[in-house]
Formats: sequence, C-alpha cells, structure tokens
Amino acid sequence: MTEPTETTSDTDRIDLLHQVLESGSVRKATRMLNALHPAEIAHVLQSLPPPQRKIVWRMVDDAAEGEVLLYLNDDVRDEILRGMDATEILAAAEGLAVDDLADLVQDLPATVTSEVLSSLDEQRRERLETALSYPEDSAGGLMNTDMVTVRPEVTLDVVLRYLRRRKDGLPEITDNLIVVSRQGRYLGVLYLTDLLTNDPDDSVAEVMTLDVQPIPADAKAREVANRFEQLDLVSAPVIDADGRVLGRVTVDDVMDVIREEADHQFLGHAGLSEGEDMFAPVLLSARRRAVWLGINLLTAFLAAWVIGLFEATIEQIVALAVLMPVVASMGGIAGTQTLTLAIRGIALGHLSAKNIRWLVSKEMAVAMLNGLLWAAVVAGIAWLWFGSSGIAAIIATAITLNVLAATLSGALLPLLLDRFGIDPALAGGVILTTVTDVVGFLSFLGLASLFLL
Amino acid sequence: MTEPTETTSDTDRIDLLHQVLESGSVRKATRMLNALHPAEIAHVLQSLPPPQRKIVWRMVDDAAEGEVLLYLNDDVRDEILRGMDATEILAAAEGLAVDDLADLVQDLPATVTSEVLSSLDEQRRERLETALSYPEDSAGGLMNTDMVTVRPEVTLDVVLRYLRRRKDGLPEITDNLIVVSRQGRYLGVLYLTDLLTNDPDDSVAEVMTLDVQPIPADAKAREVANRFEQLDLVSAPVIDADGRVLGRVTVDDVMDVIREEADHQFLGHAGLSEGEDMFAPVLLSARRRAVWLGINLLTAFLAAWVIGLFEATIEQIVALAVLMPVVASMGGIAGTQTLTLAIRGIALGHLSAKNIRWLVSKEMAVAMLNGLLWAAVVAGIAWLWFGSSGIAAIIATAITLNVLAATLSGALLPLLLDRFGIDPALAGGVILTTVTDVVGFLSFLGLASLFLL
Repeated sequence: MTEPTETTSDTDRIDLLHQVLESGSVRKATRMLNALHPAEIAHVLQSLPPPQRKIVWRMVDDAAEGEVLLYLNDDVRDEILRGMDATEILAAAEGLAVDDLADLVQDLPATVTSEVLSSLDEQRRERLETALSYPEDSAGGLMNTDMVTVRPEVTLDVVLRYLRRRKDGLPEITDNLIVVSRQGRYLGVLYLTDLLTNDPDDSVAEVMTLDVQPIPADAKAREVANRFEQLDLVSAPVIDADGRVLGRVTVDDVMDVIREEADHQFLGHAGLSEGEDMFAPVLLSARRRAVWLGINLLTAFLAAWVIGLFEATIEQIVALAVLMPVVASMGGIAGTQTLTLAIRGIALGHLSAKNIRWLVSKEMAVAMLNGLLWAAVVAGIAWLWFGSSGIAAIIATAITLNVLAATLSGALLPLLLDRFGIDPALAGGVILTTVTDVVGFLSFLGLASLFLL
Repeated sequence: MTEPTETTSDTDRIDLLHQVLESGSVRKATRMLNALHPAEIAHVLQSLPPPQRKIVWRMVDDAAEGEVLLYLNDDVRDEILRGMDATEILAAAEGLAVDDLADLVQDLPATVTSEVLSSLDEQRRERLETALSYPEDSAGGLMNTDMVTVRPEVTLDVVLRYLRRRKDGLPEITDNLIVVSRQGRYLGVLYLTDLLTNDPDDSVAEVMTLDVQPIPADAKAREVANRFEQLDLVSAPVIDADGRVLGRVTVDDVMDVIREEADHQFLGHAGLSEGEDMFAPVLLSARRRAVWLGINLLTAFLAAWVIGLFEATIEQIVALAVLMPVVASMGGIAGTQTLTLAIRGIALGHLSAKNIRWLVSKEMAVAMLNGLLWAAVVAGIAWLWFGSSGIAAIIATAITLNVLAATLSGALLPLLLDRFGIDPALAGGVILTTVTDVVGFLSFLGLASLFLL
C-alpha cells in the first residue's frame, strides 16, 4: 500500500491510472493496479474504453483474474472472456468459491464449461451442479454453500473449541452459525455476537435465535432482497422443500440484487439491458438499440397514421397541427408518473390486485384535478394565440380525456403486464406512449373535425 | 408465532389482514399485526390507503411505534406524525438508538424536537447533536455511534472476557470490533470470525485486519454505498479529519441508501420524489405533480411555437404535420438511451470528465449508424405513403440530424448539470425532450420550407 490509493476517490484513482498509462510506465501502472481490491480493479476496467481495457486486463495478476471477472458486469465480462483461451479461463476459475464459479460458468461457452466441470474434484462438482440447478434469480441461485452448521444440544464451549480448531477460518460474511437437526433440518441460528457474550456452559438451544425465517430455495431474488432490507439481515439460511438447509444468502449478494433490480427498472425504461456496458463496442450497442428504436418507430407511425386520418381537417385549420403535440405530451407526462409509481409499487411488494382499486381511484382523482387545471391553462393560451374559442374548448376537452386515459393505463398496465409475464419496466413505457399519442391525436383532431368544420 | 405469517408472502399477509379487518375482528387483527417485525408493520401500513392506515396504526403496540416510524417512507411518516401529539411522539422516541432518533427528529416540528432533546440524558443528547451536525446524506449522517472499540496491545483472551462481561450484548450488525489507539485514532478492525478462530494468546495487533479503510465523516452517502458494494463490507468505521473514530456505518443503512438512490433515479425521471407515498392524499399528489406538468407544458409550448413558425408551409404540405411527430420521437428515444446510460455512469462513479470524450465518440458512432438506418426506413415509408421523394429526403435528413443532436445532449447533459449542482435525474429528461422537439420540428419543417415550397 505505498500508493496513495486509500484517500483518493474512484475518479481520482482512474485519473491517476490514466496518467500513468499515458506516461507509458507499465510497471508502475501494474503495481498500482494490483494493489487494488479485485472489485476496484473491475471498477477501473469498466471505466475504461475497450482499447485501454485490454491493456489493463493484461496487467492484472493471474491469481486475481477470477475474482475480477466476478465483479464485472455481463457485457464487459463477456468481452474479456472472449479474449481468453480455455486454459486461461480454467486457471482463473481455480480459486473461486462454488457459488461464484456458478455465476461465471453461466457465461462460458459450453465446451469450456464442460472442461471446467471435469477439472473439479467430486465434491466441488456436485456443489456446482446443485448451484446451477436453481434459476439465477432465485434464493437457490444466489446462495452460497459455504457455511458452518452446529447442533442444538452442544454447549457454546464445544462450539468455541470447534471453531478454533477450524484450519481455514470461517466463510466470509459469517454473522451466525446455522443450527440444524440430526437430519439437517433448519432449527435456528446462533449469532456470533451471542456466542461471544453468553455463558460457555449454556447450550446452543438455549442461546440460539428462532426468529430468522429460513428462505425457500425457490423464493424469488426480489423477495429475498425485500426481506433482507426489511429485517436488516446480514445472512439467512436457504432450505429445500423438506426444511433441510442447503446454504445461505449473504448481504453482499443481496446488495447486487438490489442494484441489478434498480438498474433493470431505470435502464429498462430506455430499452437498455441492465448488463449494459457504457463502453460497449459500437456495433453491439447499435444493434441492440436499433431494436428499441424500431419498436418505438412503430408507435410513432401509428400516431402518424391517426394524424393522417385528419389530413383534410388540418389543411383547413393549421392551428391544429401546431397544438396537437401539446395534447399528446400532457397525457404522456401524467401517464408516466402513474406508471412509474405502479412499477415501483409492484417491485417493493406494496401493490397487488388487492389494493389496485385504491391506487386507480386516487390517481384518477389526481388526474381529474390536474387535467382540468392544465386544460384550462392550455385553453387560455390557445385562445389568446389563435383567437378561436372553438379550438380552446376542444383542446381543453382533449387534454382532459387524454390525461385520464393515460393515468388509467399507467395504473393498470404494470399489473396487467406482470400477470401475462411481460416485464412492465420494459414494455410499460412504449405501450403507454402509444395510448397517449393515439388518444391525444384522435380526441383532439376528431373533436375538431366534428365541431369546427 | 401462532399465525401462519412465516410462510405467506407479503401480499398474502396484507390480504389476510384486510380480510380480518373487514370481518371487524379488531382483536385478531391487532394480534396478527403485532406478531410482525416493525419493518413488516411499516410495509403493511404503506400498502394501505390512508383511512385503513389510520385504523391499523392505532392497533400498533406503543412499544413498537418508534421503530415502525423509522421504517416508513417520508410521506407516510409525516402523515402519521401529524396525527400524534408531543407526548405520544416522546413515548415513541424513547427506546430508539441515537442514529435512528436523529433520522426521526429531522421530520419533527421544531417545538417537539426541543422537547425530545430536553427529555434525553446528557450522553444521549450529546450523541444526538453530533449525529445531527452532519448532513443526512453523508457518512456522518448515516453512522451509528453504538460500537465496541478495543486496543491493539491486549490479547484476544482479554477481549473475549471483556465481551462476556458486557451486560447488554453487542450492538446489532457487529461483524468486527474497531481497534483504536490511546487517542481514539483508527488502527484497524478485529473481525469476530478472526477473534473466534485465532489463538487467545495472540494480541489484537497480530490478528486485526488493516485493509478496511475508514470512511471520512464527510464522505457522500453514494460513495459509501459504492464502497460497501465493491468491497462486500458489512460495517465500516467512520473517522473525523484527525483520524479519530466517531462511529460506524452498517450495511442495513447502506441498503437503504442504495434503494433511495435507485428510487431517486427511477422516480426522478417522472418528476416524482423518492419519498412519494403511493397512497398520498389526492390534493398533495395533485399539487406536486402539477408543478412537473407545468414545466413540461412549457416544453410542449416551445415545440408548438416552433411548429407555428411554419404554419404557411404546413398549410401547403399537410403530410409534414402527419410525419413530424416521427422525427421528434426518434430523437427522443435515441437521446433517452444515452442520457440514461450517462446518469447511471455518474451514479456508479464510472463516468467523469476524464472519460466523457470516449462516451461521446462511441455514442455518436452508434447514433450515426442507427440514425442512418432508421432514416432510410422512415424515408422509404414516407415515400410509399405520400409519393414524394422530396419529403422522403427531407425526413431522412431531419431524423439523422435530430438523432445526432439528441445523442450529443444525452451524453453531455448529465455531467454539465452535475457541475452546476442541478440533479440530472430530475432535469435531464425535460431538457432533452426540449432539445429533441425543437431540433426535430425545426430541422424537418425548416428544410421542407427551404426545399419543397
């Protein structure tokens, strides 16, 4: 730790590395880099554009490569794995814990995966296969098989002596030992803090905590995260359908779940995937984004087609063309607010079919108030601008209708999409825009055709 | 734990409570409710509309009220605090840890705050005042003063005996003891796991870990969260400018920071605040949202004004009115993708002024490819639809220009806004829409006026 890395912020550090890289001092840069934690090295790699990323990757100590790979997001990891041959990948995979290996293996080409599997000893292979048998976004997929279990009838003193004899210490992020029956069924947890502060002659059964509920292996990652957040857990045991302990989930993996979920929601509304690398190759990014632009183009053309139905009307009253984006936009904004609230409500488990009625009636009341308020404002401006009370009346009506339709869609869409297994964070926005464009243009131009011609 | 709460999911539980509430069995509902963890009670309250929320709040055990308040989001907490008098608030505040009290006090009316302060003993008041002296979103604001420190020269055996003599156990989420010098300066941490697995005759200095870097009290909450995520920390010491240990940050508070940050990004893009209660009173919601609708209306009218400049052109070629939303929309989508990526990059510390050049050139390359691709598609459709090669050529040019302008703004806006202290998650989207609307309409209608009339 001779480099001043500890007090500098991430960007300073990257900046420093850039400078050293540019000065051409590879040895100094290598030394600086390998003084960092694997997660920090991953962070640096992700902040670098691909050409520099390749150079820096070559500087990483062989022993740290596996860990660094784990901390990279999917895109950058794929990019780096593509540049490695099977031998290098095997070497990197060597020192990893089984649950970490499981994460990594899922990104490998099938041929390399089977090589990795056959390079493992019996026990590790079995554990890896168990870990791989659960979906990545379930408690089973998140869990760690590295844990310490104790029996309820022994005394704390026996536990203390047992721990001191363990040659390789305790697994990382161990805040409790899992108390199991002879059959391996979950009974409770013994917090290390309780182990340290209670009488060594007490039995585990007397001191253990009963209110940490074990997590079923098929629980969804999102539910696991919500539970960790609510109960301030550091680790929690995972059980199978028979109550047997399979492993445990630790808070570091839960933080990743929360971050990924958040990324998914935030990036999803722009049609980006959560593994998106900021410096992904141009062609890869362009291809992915093209799909999203194409889907949105369909929406835009649907809107254009609706406008096209009223060409004759617009030809006579050009003011309609001037004002129509205002109608669509007000609906879009109001609907997005409700949609966003509903998507988050579902993610946090606050919103379900049981209380959707409340949300809808509240949001519709809000929409009615704001719809009328802004309809009046827009009508006033339109009247001053074009001096036509007819246009003013029609734009006010159209805005009110569109805001109400947008809000109703915004509230109902997420639960509806969720029920059909479609991800609301991805599809919600596009569908909502379609609704607000179509309803906006149709009501405004339609009413104008009926009453102004 | 006689109720089947442990195996049912959150929504089932809320559902069950609803049923019991509707059946009018207040006693049963009260019993069910108070069997839950305070965080779960808070969750239930947040899933209920205000009238039912008041009823359920009255059922909560007095002793649990303080804790439940802590887990509520700002809006719901304010609502409930407004319904309590000073005596009730004082009673609820009684059993809370100092850092939790600090969170709560910030939401109280000033008169109640001073009552709370004067009701505390000397030591607790001092600690509370220290906690309140740091901004809420800094390490000092997040930290907990409840911690155990040890000196480096003592043996593990001394530490073990000291811990066993502590009457009130160890603070929650204690994974390590903080090793300090005689002057209270930070030296390292002693993990409980190391304390348990090493020879009791070893000294703390021999066993302690040096590579947990202490966090300066003025570090931003976001940086603290990034560090916890990167280094898989459970707790970390907080120091003042002289290196003296002030307290520690624990992972439960960090999870809250990550969630709030994520909420802020996700809700912010729709102009909602992160404390937003899904069931907030209609008038409150309406007033808050009205502001956002008003700001966006300005944008919409700016766009309308641009279109208005070309009324004469549209009168002659109505097809322009039909197609113009397509031009604005393609720019909006492409720009939002880049904007979203840049906002996230800044939040994660991956993007700074040092590597923005790379992001811009990569995004512009992507924009050029996609702009040309979709410009060609749109031009083809426009040509088929209106049979005018002039319109086709002009819409292709306008889309390409708009996608490029949108992408450039999307990439540069977040850093620019950040530099001026404006929150990109809030303002980025509105400004971007303004750019894509104005550039889209101006280029499309402007080019048409120049070349088609």
